[in-house]
Amino acid sequence: MSSEYLENVRRQRPVVHTITNYVTANDCANLLLAAGASPIMADAPEETAQIAAMADAVVLNLGTLSASKREAMLLAGKAAAAAGRPIVLDPVGVGASDFRRETAKMLLAEVHPTVIRGNRSEIRALLTGETGERGVDTADLSEDGAETSRLLARQTGAIVMQTGETDLVTDGDRILRVHGGSDLLCLVTGAGCMLSALTGAFLAANPQDPLRAAAAAAQTMSVCAEIAAKRLRTGEGNASFRTRLIDAMCNLTPEIFRKWRQEV
Amino acid sequence: MSSEYLENVRRQRPVVHTITNYVTANDCANLLLAAGASPIMADAPEETAQIAAMADAVVLNLGTLSASKREAMLLAGKAAAAAGRPIVLDPVGVGASDFRRETAKMLLAEVHPTVIRGNRSEIRALLTGETGERGVDTADLSEDGAETSRLLARQTGAIVMQTGETDLVTDGDRILRVHGGSDLLCLVTGAGCMLSALTGAFLAANPQDPLRAAAAAAQTMSVCAEIAAKRLRTGEGNASFRTRLIDAMCNLTPEIFRKWRQEV
Amino acid sequence: MSSEYLENVRRQRPVVHTITNYVTANDCANLLLAAGASPIMADAPEETAQIAAMADAVVLNLGTLSASKREAMLLAGKAAAAAGRPIVLDPVGVGASDFRRETAKMLLAEVHPTVIRGNRSEIRALLTGETGERGVDTADLSEDGAETSRLLARQTGAIVMQTGETDLVTDGDRILRVHGGSDLLCLVTGAGCMLSALTGAFLAANPQDPLRAAAAAAQTMSVCAEIAAKRLRTGEGNASFRTRLIDAMCNLTPEIFRKWRQEV
Repeated sequence: MSSEYLENVRRQRPVVHTITNYVTANDCANLLLAAGASPIMADAPEETAQIAAMADAVVLNLGTLSASKREAMLLAGKAAAAAGRPIVLDPVGVGASDFRRETAKMLLAEVHPTVIRGNRSEIRALLTGETGERGVDTADLSEDGAETSRLLARQTGAIVMQTGETDLVTDGDRILRVHGGSDLLCLVTGAGCMLSALTGAFLAANPQDPLRAAAAAAQTMSVCAEIAAKRLRTGEGNASFRTRLIDAMCNLTPEIFRKWRQEV
Repeated sequence: MSSEYLENVRRQRPVVHTITNYVTANDCANLLLAAGASPIMADAPEETAQIAAMADAVVLNLGTLSASKREAMLLAGKAAAAAGRPIVLDPVGVGASDFRRETAKMLLAEVHPTVIRGNRSEIRALLTGETGERGVDTADLSEDGAETSRLLARQTGAIVMQTGETDLVTDGDRILRVHGGSDLLCLVTGAGCMLSALTGAFLAANPQDPLRAAAAAAQTMSVCAEIAAKRLRTGEGNASFRTRLIDAMCNLTPEIFRKWRQEV
Repeated sequence: MSSEYLENVRRQRPVVHTITNYVTANDCANLLLAAGASPIMADAPEETAQIAAMADAVVLNLGTLSASKREAMLLAGKAAAAAGRPIVLDPVGVGASDFRRETAKMLLAEVHPTVIRGNRSEIRALLTGETGERGVDTADLSEDGAETSRLLARQTGAIVMQTGETDLVTDGDRILRVHGGSDLLCLVTGAGCMLSALTGAFLAANPQDPLRAAAAAAQTMSVCAEIAAKRLRTGEGNASFRTRLIDAMCNLTPEIFRKWRQEV
């Protein structure tokens, strides 16, 4: 992997239409700006088709889902699909309710996302269609998840990015692994949402190979997390880490990227 | 009070279903993560009953209220009550509109919260049922509020936590006072929302004595505020204080807790 | 311009009813608190007329617009107009969809805002009524925008504040220019939203001359941005800049204001 993918984002400044939850929308927007992309947040059914049709990528995030957002995501997804734009689906807490599970199922059927980005329990819940997870952040540690991700990729035709201690990115055939990152990501709400938004930007600016573009987004986030963790001072915690994470993206250059990857 | 209450949160990692306003949802989620709890934010009537039934505590916050959120809170509250889970009601700006006042009244009647957490003017507005406060942060300084809180506790059967320069926690009979904290809390939007969310986590992990669990949440927040204020550097203000407040929660150990309480 | 306008905000603590998007609502609230104002965020049609009637200023922001927010803004705007309170309209991304364009048009006709605050492309889209902008942050650099702003001010009777490298504030006749600020503002989501909210506070506390009050808000924000940029340390980026921006507002005194303006 190289830093070229991020450079393409900075050069092209893709407009990323992000339909996301209100918990982490601010962080997603600031991370996209830090990466050189141009976020537009809009989730009213009255306008999402029009905005998605003009955007370079669309991100559909199921956090704080509502009936209105569900319709808005369907309309945006269809407009993006019609325009040949990449679509990222982030099935936040999909195992937590029938409402999210059925919405995810509907979007998978109607929209055909380019990438599905979730943690292990979300990916598993998507594959099995089972509800019953208790939280957004709980995870089943009994398997490494590669087979689940691969199966979901084959079933949906989407690239599946399963994030965790190691991130797995698979198209159902090839599988790329991204190591590194920081445990502190688990203590920041929206770390996954931010990566999903970033993936939208990477797909838009790097259309030649979506699998590698998605993995590059994960690796870029991972490098930023490592830089943020290293810069953390005594007495600082998850809130400062979040700030430093976005800061790291803002300051990331090819030189820092390469130097960092050699060092660690 | 001791640090044992927080330790129980960290050990049990309770899932806290937080139905809150979009202004402070991010801070609430990060504070819960910092305390070791597992937040899930969901406010659609289609899913809140199901999610609340699985959660360990439910927090109902009236900020940026909507008709949809009101219904979602009612459903979540009933599901939590049926499952015997603790419920926190935060009547944000309840004196500012009839809509909030009537919603609060409805929730008090239908849901029977375990704890009501508000500032002095909110607690008074809940008791008297009067509208007319001009803002979320205005306060009547003409009384110490203990009698109002006690009356509201007796009227509702809830523990009332009235926060301000000194926090009062009462079940209508006993009254606990929590001193300390920082004036800077008044300059951070959502300081109260964060404490309400934290109280949900403390109640879930410490079911043996809700009154003391609620007071322990207030005291923990108070210690974090003091640590954050002390760590503030020249030129830093309310935004850095917010970051340092959540950081302090993230790093709080029994040792720091005890050492801090002895020092001040 | 002088620091007197901010001092009036701190003295009077105006209640600013802010109907804004969920992406930047937290920053708007914390910035208002930092400036000494008292924010109240409420966007349900059930309550906005009542809250606006009690508030000292109303801010209507089109970000993450919804049908419900549109109605809420209309009701709040009418109540504020009836009470003679200042109204700020922030047409976020108005060129991005017919829904936003038509809502802006409706609000201009029904509510008569005191100030319209937008970037160059938003001001142009408002004047021409054309849709087709791709993002919130894109801008047409082909003109300096003064004529567009002046025309819009004459057409609407509102003061137009067009922000960018230089901020222009015009009532259609006089035009005030505010220089300075920081390029980093372009990398922070909600920098414009924050200025719009702040302008509401400045108008409320300085009713004698809305044109100069609006320009004073822009200049105050500009000074804070310069202070924040100067305080930024190696490795810090847009997220730290946002924190330092709000911090700077929190700590701004007449002395700092005067000293800073002499220095730069």
